[in-house]
Amino acid sequence: MAATLTTAASTQEKLLRARAASTRLALLGTEEKNALLLAIADAIDANEKSILAANQKDVDTSGLEGAMRDRLLLTSARIKDMASGVREVAALPDPIGECLAEWTKSNGLRIRKLRVPLGVVGIIYESRPNVTVDTAVLALKTGNAIVLRGGKEAAHSNQCLVEIMAAVRGVPEGAIELLDSATRQSVQELIKARGLVDVIIPRGGAGLITFVTENSAVPVIETGAGNCHIFVDETADFEMADRIVINAKTQRPSVCNSAEKLLVHERVAAEYVPRIVKKLMDAGVEVRGDGKARNLAGGLHIVPATEQDWHEEYLRLCMAVAVVANVEDAIAHINRYSTKHSDSILTHNEANARKFLRGVDSAAVYWNASTRFTDGAEFGFGAEMGISTQKLHCRGPFALAELTSSKYEIVGTGQVR
Amino acid sequence: MAATLTTAASTQEKLLRARAASTRLALLGTEEKNALLLAIADAIDANEKSILAANQKDVDTSGLEGAMRDRLLLTSARIKDMASGVREVAALPDPIGECLAEWTKSNGLRIRKLRVPLGVVGIIYESRPNVTVDTAVLALKTGNAIVLRGGKEAAHSNQCLVEIMAAVRGVPEGAIELLDSATRQSVQELIKARGLVDVIIPRGGAGLITFVTENSAVPVIETGAGNCHIFVDETADFEMADRIVINAKTQRPSVCNSAEKLLVHERVAAEYVPRIVKKLMDAGVEVRGDGKARNLAGGLHIVPATEQDWHEEYLRLCMAVAVVANVEDAIAHINRYSTKHSDSILTHNEANARKFLRGVDSAAVYWNASTRFTDGAEFGFGAEMGISTQKLHCRGPFALAELTSSKYEIVGTGQVR
Repeated sequence: MAATLTTAASTQEKLLRARAASTRLALLGTEEKNALLLAIADAIDANEKSILAANQKDVDTSGLEGAMRDRLLLTSARIKDMASGVREVAALPDPIGECLAEWTKSNGLRIRKLRVPLGVVGIIYESRPNVTVDTAVLALKTGNAIVLRGGKEAAHSNQCLVEIMAAVRGVPEGAIELLDSATRQSVQELIKARGLVDVIIPRGGAGLITFVTENSAVPVIETGAGNCHIFVDETADFEMADRIVINAKTQRPSVCNSAEKLLVHERVAAEYVPRIVKKLMDAGVEVRGDGKARNLAGGLHIVPATEQDWHEEYLRLCMAVAVVANVEDAIAHINRYSTKHSDSILTHNEANARKFLRGVDSAAVYWNASTRFTDGAEFGFGAEMGISTQKLHCRGPFALAELTSSKYEIVGTGQVR
Repeated sequence: MAATLTTAASTQEKLLRARAASTRLALLGTEEKNALLLAIADAIDANEKSILAANQKDVDTSGLEGAMRDRLLLTSARIKDMASGVREVAALPDPIGECLAEWTKSNGLRIRKLRVPLGVVGIIYESRPNVTVDTAVLALKTGNAIVLRGGKEAAHSNQCLVEIMAAVRGVPEGAIELLDSATRQSVQELIKARGLVDVIIPRGGAGLITFVTENSAVPVIETGAGNCHIFVDETADFEMADRIVINAKTQRPSVCNSAEKLLVHERVAAEYVPRIVKKLMDAGVEVRGDGKARNLAGGLHIVPATEQDWHEEYLRLCMAVAVVANVEDAIAHINRYSTKHSDSILTHNEANARKFLRGVDSAAVYWNASTRFTDGAEFGFGAEMGISTQKLHCRGPFALAELTSSKYEIVGTGQVR
């Protein structure tokens, strides 16, 4: 294994290598790229021991415990999952080269719009080391070079995984570069590398995402933050509402598509608020609420919600409940406080559902379903880079097709204007 | 006319009005939007005198002369053109509401991907006042609010045009906002207004574009810079080459798709370089060149090209000529120096043409045609916002469809994960 591939070079040198690699990667055919991916999967399987040893160093030095330690930890089973994830990406269709449009002008010029790689993709992410492999193979599949800047907790694991992937025969030098994670210096250089890097994707907490979006000179695709709402309308089926609210809040509270806020129509609030608050509390959820919700909760203890609560993405077993006058109020509340990720209306009133679907300005809007479905795999896209909450380039689940750009190819016979 | 609409408010107040207007605009139907556009066209025609008077103030106070004065100047004919441009946009298909994809999952969830407005679009531009009307109506057509920050030379013209458009009955308050152009303060506030503004489009010189891309916290679509190349390959038809080079350089040298650089294959350089240099000089073009081109030019005076020349977008009757060893060298030169706008190969060798089309990393790549065709109208898209030279969201001519985003609408019957 060529351990020197990813070390002992400055950030600038690594970015230049990635830029050079991107032109070679763009010329690879689908079969060549898939062969590289399968070889990477095999190399991950074959190097299980060294991956576990590198990860053990991270776990030991991090001092992390509980859920955070678990996010960092790799096991034999998780390494096998990583490798099979790579094989799944190899099996997906290759979007590169797809002809998106084609026409001939009256002057005889033939114009084709073709899907091409973005070039160099930068990823800034936090602890989970599987992101290193997941994103590198999505980039490779789409003919992009990738520059990874992981968290320092996972430094040994990431270094080991990148060395294994980069050492696979046929992977161009510079195709997968790992930046130093010891200080923030490499982040600063990466986000200012306009011209060398085509897009930056921050994956992590709100602090990281805000820092990158506000400071990057390179275009950014914002992913991740999800302050998702469920609105229980006057005509909602309460049993369906119970099932959806409990699912959206408790099935996996740490992910961005879990629900954080519950809005209840005032005409059914007296009946539904105490009912759902009881069920949420039975499921271990801390419930917060506005004045109306608290007044309706009977003996149940609802923590008063502050203005900050309506903005916050809890990412844990906590939910804030508000009573609203009607669907218009629900839409206004969501458009004011949501992160434009996923929001759902539960109702039997089609006119209200249409109003909500059209009026709520979010990446995914639901009628009578859990917000938990906003996910690349659930949508049928295969592996994903994340969920985009911005409006440019891609919105919602962000998968292979969104790791591409397009170019126009124009063939003439000497035409001039 | 409601002259107070666009004055006496702070930038922040205008941005909040635009944000509020965007939710109302998103709900307008195609017929309603087209009716507003036709009414705006009529209002421009009806207010010709006040527009001319406002423009006269700008022309008088600007002190501009020659081409710059001409860019600023409005005439009766130009105002009529502006109004008929608005009617043309009204006649274009409305992209909003288009269903981009639709499928049903095995669990019964129905997923639709729909085209929706971006929300609030900010434009920062320089002197031509017709941009004020062109961009405002493209935004209105696509259900977006627009915030305009024009140049101070055109302040009276822009104010008058925005007042005329904003005063049309049915245009929501805040749909078309004009920021103060006296200082750079409003630019600073606009590019930091993340959350209120969804995209910023800088239209103007390289200085403006670099400033905005490096400092904006709002996503940017970069338009405009075009350091375009023509490569005359070994097997090029010299007569076709003469016609294309002269057209691409001289037909309209001030625009971004005009050619700035000429690369000639070394095997034909001895014959072609003196031939084309003579023709360029006859057409009034200043010719610069590398050592090889200068040696081949015989008695013709070619200015030595510096490293800076290869990067520069001249936007005037000037062209730099370099001799390259082969198509690979031409591709490498272009990928190193071009602004990734439009580049053309002139050849009868299909393998070389394919190599060039695939290998040159630009928005538009040509084989045997002039770079001057990279244009929304020439491509058949109707009116355009500009030519995007970035890879995210849109690349190449940037028209109505690129002023939109998408959202996923998911309809269920109580599904949970």
